[in-house]
Amino acid sequence: MDGSHWLSMRPVAEKLAQNGHKVVVLTAESSLSMNGSDLYTALTYSISYSKEDLVSRLEMFGSDHFTPSYFPGVTITMYNNMQEVFRIYGDVCKSLLSNAELIQNLKDEKFDALMTDPFSLCGTILAEYLDMPTVMFLRGMPCSFDYISGQCPTPLSYVPKLFTTFTDHMTFIQRLQNVFVSLFDSVLFDILYSPYAKLATEFLKRDVSVMDLYRRASIWLLTYDFVFEFPKPIIPNMVFIGGINCANRQSVFQDFEKLVNSSGEHGFVVFSLGSMVSEIPMDKAMDIAEAFRSIPQTVIWRYTGKVPSNLGSNTHLVKWLPQNDLLAHPKARAFITHAGSHGIYEGICNAVPMVMLPLFGDQMDNAKRIESRGAGVTLNVLDMTPEDLINALDSVINKPSYKENIQRLSALHLDRPIHPLDLAVHWVEFVMRHKGAPHLRPAAHDLNWIQYHSLDVFAFLLAVLVTTFFISFKCCTYTCRRCCGRKSRPKSKSKKE
Amino acid sequence: MDGSHWLSMRPVAEKLAQNGHKVVVLTAESSLSMNGSDLYTALTYSISYSKEDLVSRLEMFGSDHFTPSYFPGVTITMYNNMQEVFRIYGDVCKSLLSNAELIQNLKDEKFDALMTDPFSLCGTILAEYLDMPTVMFLRGMPCSFDYISGQCPTPLSYVPKLFTTFTDHMTFIQRLQNVFVSLFDSVLFDILYSPYAKLATEFLKRDVSVMDLYRRASIWLLTYDFVFEFPKPIIPNMVFIGGINCANRQSVFQDFEKLVNSSGEHGFVVFSLGSMVSEIPMDKAMDIAEAFRSIPQTVIWRYTGKVPSNLGSNTHLVKWLPQNDLLAHPKARAFITHAGSHGIYEGICNAVPMVMLPLFGDQMDNAKRIESRGAGVTLNVLDMTPEDLINALDSVINKPSYKENIQRLSALHLDRPIHPLDLAVHWVEFVMRHKGAPHLRPAAHDLNWIQYHSLDVFAFLLAVLVTTFFISFKCCTYTCRRCCGRKSRPKSKSKKE
Repeated sequence: MDGSHWLSMRPVAEKLAQNGHKVVVLTAESSLSMNGSDLYTALTYSISYSKEDLVSRLEMFGSDHFTPSYFPGVTITMYNNMQEVFRIYGDVCKSLLSNAELIQNLKDEKFDALMTDPFSLCGTILAEYLDMPTVMFLRGMPCSFDYISGQCPTPLSYVPKLFTTFTDHMTFIQRLQNVFVSLFDSVLFDILYSPYAKLATEFLKRDVSVMDLYRRASIWLLTYDFVFEFPKPIIPNMVFIGGINCANRQSVFQDFEKLVNSSGEHGFVVFSLGSMVSEIPMDKAMDIAEAFRSIPQTVIWRYTGKVPSNLGSNTHLVKWLPQNDLLAHPKARAFITHAGSHGIYEGICNAVPMVMLPLFGDQMDNAKRIESRGAGVTLNVLDMTPEDLINALDSVINKPSYKENIQRLSALHLDRPIHPLDLAVHWVEFVMRHKGAPHLRPAAHDLNWIQYHSLDVFAFLLAVLVTTFFISFKCCTYTCRRCCGRKSRPKSKSKKE
Repeated sequence: MDGSHWLSMRPVAEKLAQNGHKVVVLTAESSLSMNGSDLYTALTYSISYSKEDLVSRLEMFGSDHFTPSYFPGVTITMYNNMQEVFRIYGDVCKSLLSNAELIQNLKDEKFDALMTDPFSLCGTILAEYLDMPTVMFLRGMPCSFDYISGQCPTPLSYVPKLFTTFTDHMTFIQRLQNVFVSLFDSVLFDILYSPYAKLATEFLKRDVSVMDLYRRASIWLLTYDFVFEFPKPIIPNMVFIGGINCANRQSVFQDFEKLVNSSGEHGFVVFSLGSMVSEIPMDKAMDIAEAFRSIPQTVIWRYTGKVPSNLGSNTHLVKWLPQNDLLAHPKARAFITHAGSHGIYEGICNAVPMVMLPLFGDQMDNAKRIESRGAGVTLNVLDMTPEDLINALDSVINKPSYKENIQRLSALHLDRPIHPLDLAVHWVEFVMRHKGAPHLRPAAHDLNWIQYHSLDVFAFLLAVLVTTFFISFKCCTYTCRRCCGRKSRPKSKSKKE
């Protein structure tokens, strides 16, 4: 997986290499974020997209979310964008699987395990082909397919589906909507992943379903914990590594030292919309710059677009920023974020209250989770006025409850018996040492839908009940008829006589 | 909790004290196994039973399981024994709660947390009264009440109920029985725990249910893992600390050194029926001694009864044995155990295959778990002949599969990122630091049964469906009548005319 998904996988690959393992990272030639490393071997394969191609598609994808749109337009755009993302992933996967030389090389290596983000099925198809135990590494899958294919129960009454932005305390109407969304899960999943099923069947030269492929997961490494996510049932082969991306790199931070120290008693605000959105429409940029002019804090804004003419002297535009290092600074007062899971965890790790401008994917849900804990304020980037942003920043910076709540979340998150990076590495190595983790696989995988829900048992009990009732009824009527018959027959006989 | 339950709690209490906490252990004056310690303060309270009383009741309880009995006698004995155990626990609890001076002392101390085995509700009632966050420490509760009160789903199709001795792969008939057992869960639980509810209501001076009390659990420390237990859904505040009792104490072991070293190439067998059963009927003891005479291994047998006259020279009777230290010795060839969870984990930790003679409680289920993994053989202690025991020992010692399987289980169990004792201590300290762990509590606790199962949502959907159908039907019939009416009315009119 490319893009932001790779950011938290990389430290695991590096730590595994430092532990003495040979780590091979499969990278498309035109990759967005998967640069090489001294620690691991990067094996590249050519794809039909140039890097410029991918970047321009990504920018288009990002800018789509700044165009005001309402139902059904917004849903159609979202659907089309999702289809486009899956089409690109599918094309990249096709390029990888059709690279016979590379596949043969991988086969010859006889690896001990494969780690993949299951958002794209490609790694899992490869693991099946090379017969390798698989570690899934993810924030979450569309349609909760991680929980469905892992055979983990998710009661719809308090486990909100992704993209609903509900909390775990739902009203009746929300629970109704949650059930509705779940009804369409398998349909949407089928639309998104059916091209992969075709690809897998061609490549593996046998009929195979997407569910079969995902079921081979030995361990699910999930990049969240229950400080952020609402508590819900889990299964023993799910391992929670939220905050794995919060690593300070002091050397990079030195460049920003002067800027940060000059921020005075009011401190500074960090603003980034993530790796996928670095430019925004000028009117929106001017609204934001207008808001920043009126706050006493210094603002460090990751932005590569045209400079807004009303930019205040307290606002500094940068092409890149060491987000976690800046948030770790005691003078960091607030974090304006698109609410990607990486950013959210950097906010939690460093106890910086957030103003969240979610754009797409899981970002609305992420924002809801922080907002419902009173540790941040969510704004709609399309509707918000400069005043909204000023008020939101004023709240999270000056109302003590926001700082207290994020400090509470941070304390809970950081109070763990083992660092999430070490935990992730442990489980990858575990899978390598033991050729998987079959002892953690629920037996539910071996049951069909009817058996799993004990429908055959209940049908049998019902049949027994009905039969018993029927026989009792027949016995009663027979007995009654006999009794009545005895009384009535003589009568008719006597009549005849 | 007294008896064997205390054995794995003690190291946690000691480690907490070593970490600088003040630890107070509440102990009944006539305790079976809760001796004092230099590390923690033992606060005692008087009860109406003497130690001799308890020991004799326990012995009676143990010897009951050596009396051949069949259905329904065996079930009635089991039920009466369980009632008797709960009556004693209830009496002990009454003594504690009515000790006003002690309760006031505890109140004055203002503790940070309370750790209790929820098998007896007493600790939980006290925690409620003193308003302390509670850590539950247990192997399991009757009727899966730990999972029920924790709001953890347990699909009956592959999660066998305790006391059924089923595995996670059940036949149709077994799944049917599993459903049946679950139907009687709440009835049995009510019988066992209703006296506690009365006691709690009196002590807390307000109506309170057993479910309410158990729901206050912050963390469930469960003394097993999924090497032993069948994988099943869990919830985030369940922590698995199986094997917490496997600690080597080399100093104690020295006394047995000579015996063990003299066992020669055939090694030795360890035999213990646990802390509750140290004597057995003479005919059974002679059968067992007879079997031991014919095997080439040295046998170390924990036994306090009359010496069987046919005891072989290779069999050594001891009043007490350092079980884990002996099993850790490379010459240990087999472990004959009653399959209590402590013993089972010592067998797993040290990779010693087992011959299991389960007697009561969870022991049959424990034995089934090891047997189903091919790491041990289960015998019925009532029916077994000397030949059965000889054959079982021969299998586990000489068939390589048993050793291989227990070694595999042992390797899986010991390959963990943190020792279970450190994990348990971490979570107790976590609860102390954060005044509980409310962020891990599923929102299911705030829903009623109808809401939890979304029955109101489905009822609403059904109502909408029926109403829609009814209105459509009415519209159709109305339209039809209108259409037909138009055709027929003129006719009738013309008829009238």
